[in-house]
Amino acid sequence: MASEREAAPAAYDELLSQYERATYLADANGVLNWDQEVMMPEGGTPARSKQRGAVSAVAHELLVEDDVGEWLSTLEDRSLSADRSAVVREIRRQHERKANVPTDLVEEISEATADAHPVWREAKADDDFGTFAPTLERLLDLKREYAAHIDPDADPYAVLFADYEPYIDLETAERVLERLREGLVPLIDAIRDSGVDLHDVEGTFPEADQAALARTALETLGYDFDRGRLDTAPHPFSSGTQFDARVTTRFEPSAPLDSLGSTIHEFGHATYTQGLSREAYGSPLGEHRGLTVHESQSRLFENHVGRSRAFWEGFTPAFNDRHGTDLTPRAAYEAANRVAPDNPIRVDADELTYHLHIVLRFEIERDLLAGDLDVPEVPAVWNDRMESYLGVRPDTDSEGCLQDIHWSHGAFGYFPTYSLGSALAAQVYAAADEEIDGLEAAVRSGEFEPLRTFLADSIHRHGCRYPTDELIERATGSPLSADPFLAYADEKFGELYDLDR
Amino acid sequence: MASEREAAPAAYDELLSQYERATYLADANGVLNWDQEVMMPEGGTPARSKQRGAVSAVAHELLVEDDVGEWLSTLEDRSLSADRSAVVREIRRQHERKANVPTDLVEEISEATADAHPVWREAKADDDFGTFAPTLERLLDLKREYAAHIDPDADPYAVLFADYEPYIDLETAERVLERLREGLVPLIDAIRDSGVDLHDVEGTFPEADQAALARTALETLGYDFDRGRLDTAPHPFSSGTQFDARVTTRFEPSAPLDSLGSTIHEFGHATYTQGLSREAYGSPLGEHRGLTVHESQSRLFENHVGRSRAFWEGFTPAFNDRHGTDLTPRAAYEAANRVAPDNPIRVDADELTYHLHIVLRFEIERDLLAGDLDVPEVPAVWNDRMESYLGVRPDTDSEGCLQDIHWSHGAFGYFPTYSLGSALAAQVYAAADEEIDGLEAAVRSGEFEPLRTFLADSIHRHGCRYPTDELIERATGSPLSADPFLAYADEKFGELYDLDR
Repeated sequence: MASEREAAPAAYDELLSQYERATYLADANGVLNWDQEVMMPEGGTPARSKQRGAVSAVAHELLVEDDVGEWLSTLEDRSLSADRSAVVREIRRQHERKANVPTDLVEEISEATADAHPVWREAKADDDFGTFAPTLERLLDLKREYAAHIDPDADPYAVLFADYEPYIDLETAERVLERLREGLVPLIDAIRDSGVDLHDVEGTFPEADQAALARTALETLGYDFDRGRLDTAPHPFSSGTQFDARVTTRFEPSAPLDSLGSTIHEFGHATYTQGLSREAYGSPLGEHRGLTVHESQSRLFENHVGRSRAFWEGFTPAFNDRHGTDLTPRAAYEAANRVAPDNPIRVDADELTYHLHIVLRFEIERDLLAGDLDVPEVPAVWNDRMESYLGVRPDTDSEGCLQDIHWSHGAFGYFPTYSLGSALAAQVYAAADEEIDGLEAAVRSGEFEPLRTFLADSIHRHGCRYPTDELIERATGSPLSADPFLAYADEKFGELYDLDR
Repeated sequence: MASEREAAPAAYDELLSQYERATYLADANGVLNWDQEVMMPEGGTPARSKQRGAVSAVAHELLVEDDVGEWLSTLEDRSLSADRSAVVREIRRQHERKANVPTDLVEEISEATADAHPVWREAKADDDFGTFAPTLERLLDLKREYAAHIDPDADPYAVLFADYEPYIDLETAERVLERLREGLVPLIDAIRDSGVDLHDVEGTFPEADQAALARTALETLGYDFDRGRLDTAPHPFSSGTQFDARVTTRFEPSAPLDSLGSTIHEFGHATYTQGLSREAYGSPLGEHRGLTVHESQSRLFENHVGRSRAFWEGFTPAFNDRHGTDLTPRAAYEAANRVAPDNPIRVDADELTYHLHIVLRFEIERDLLAGDLDVPEVPAVWNDRMESYLGVRPDTDSEGCLQDIHWSHGAFGYFPTYSLGSALAAQVYAAADEEIDGLEAAVRSGEFEPLRTFLADSIHRHGCRYPTDELIERATGSPLSADPFLAYADEKFGELYDLDR
């Protein structure tokens, strides 16, 4: 294998420089999006849509150009260093997926999803699945067609899933999700039957205090404010690059732990972004490894840190100081971990029931794509399964199959990455605990440098150097599995809910 | 001439749609720039430079593509409606200027100016023109080469000037500037000799109060906050589109009138932008008519409104309320109009001396480009002329020829547009006064709708429909002239300084 110092073939340099330009444009679009969500006045929408559309289009065109195909062919037979091979692998994958889909279809999908959004919003407001059903049907058809262009021989759902997680095969994903369902349904049943009611935090918590505490939490966790900022947005998100990875959050006066949890979640995403290689900015080696790994980093901080006993033993005084409360660390820990099986809404779900919301969506969208489920049946199947998994039946479709925006975006295959990432978070945290002496004590004393260093070394700095499965094995010593999450859940919630398991 | 309703030739539609895409990209870059100046954390610079570079490069490439040249040739002999002819005229001009300059030279200039910036900054900090001189020499050579590619037979300075103001010829610009110098030098002398000391506003004015008053001023003037926002930035600017035209300002605790004036100046720019056609967004008909006209709108509001007696008769109570002062309208009016000939710094200059700072720069850069002045002579010539025009000799080059950033950007030919715009402001305001019954009373009572409507109808909504000279004649009834400004200045400052002229 050629050494890194050996000169790269000219085709490699041209390929990388074209890809870098596409990355810079995509990141420019990220700034336009952040601004739109956080800063832009309402009247700005029409111009912003045009600007984002133009930047996307030119970025797309750069990656599908014939030149790119030719550089890739030239490099096919060349011996390249490991890093360069990884770069070529990633660019090839993106080029092939994009170049195989006709531009007309890309535009049709883009228009169909733009049209679908208001239809979904109104159907949700009117609690009327019937008005959304034809739109959903059309999006499914278009996405089946899209998948067939990419790989006519593959299961279309597997092809769509690979848009969000390219390097975990659908069988593995399915196995992990099934294992989560098998493990969690009885645990949640036991919690429901335990009769234990964990402490809750009640009262009104002014936004300014919550914002100050969010900032304290970010400082405690080690967020680099020289390469990021904290703002509010109606739907919290994080975005940006390793040079400027921003976080947003929102504040609900009655639920200070929710906004704190959401801030810590976004911190997890942002700290991954801040940990990517600055030298490799623009290349796949400076890019995140897909949604599963990204979500593992946010969930690791949200759940394994921010909902841990050790964290609250350290952080409760800051909470009490800011909010004028007198919670004990135990009370705060309990309040951060209340399980509510009777909640039908995914985004409000706790750490355990969340996965069953995902399993439900995964099963339904997989069956829809395969033609094993008809669109008009969705509400009934949704409600039946919700009842079977969580013991709650949504009163309305607005609180049932119309609650999420994802399908109106045509994003079939996205949901599983939430649970896969969450399972991976447990697996990574267990590896960190194995590796770092006194991790729990460090978390208790607000010392997060060892954890951040472990994550940066084992995950962040690699970018897309390894396929997801290989990265997971290298970072944790084992393939992706639901077992670490289930073991963690059994132990933690067994203690909290006094379960005799 | 074909009617607007007649179908456009296919080449026209293709040309316009290519141009629109380039506009959207340029406006995307405007957002990236705004964010960098106002929101971006310090660490973000390296990535932002890459993003902006990539967006600029693709926008540039869209306009120089061979297709564009071919569409333009096809349209050469076609009869087009007036609006379509204007669109083609503007795109042709941009295409020709860009396509005639080799990409290598564009990149060389871009790198040279990037390199020049820190050299200039250090030279200014060290008060050492000698270290900046070779850089200035190189930039002059590169820009001469650039001008020769665009038009080898023309005066290079005229070619560069046309980058900022394409439709006022250099002779006209020169005549207006000379007339300003001839009229203002004796007026300023008379003010210096008058012995009159106008009222001044002294004290400390907290930033929060100044910010609130800036907002009040924008509301009074009629800024549309649904299509804009107000923020702070170290160097105030305005930017954006007719859908989202933002303003920035800054606050100096001891100088509340400066920040107010600067806010009103930026309001003038932004209200021009907000007045551009929304239907024509993306086309030259939805774009501002160059720097002279843009500056005329900012100066009109800054000087003819914000420094008028009528304005202060209306606005002084708001100032007193916010700052706890008890200024009379006359005192505030005087304070807003103090003339300070002994100030060597352009950005701190008053309404009158400002022009002599510009004339000085114009004469020097014109002579430099023509080879009539050598770089090493610049400090002496600068200081001599400053003494001759304003009676003040800068103590240092930092306060003299090194004070402005423009030359380090290679922006030779930019300065004149400040004074031309300012002269035009007087001409436009005189036309508005002619047209609007009771304009002064309206300004006094904070009623700006008639003035905004006049400007929108006569200037803003036309975008680039007419060349600058034609637009000026249509809006004011006469060609660009310094006379309205000089008449205004004589009357206003004659009264303020009790001059017997």
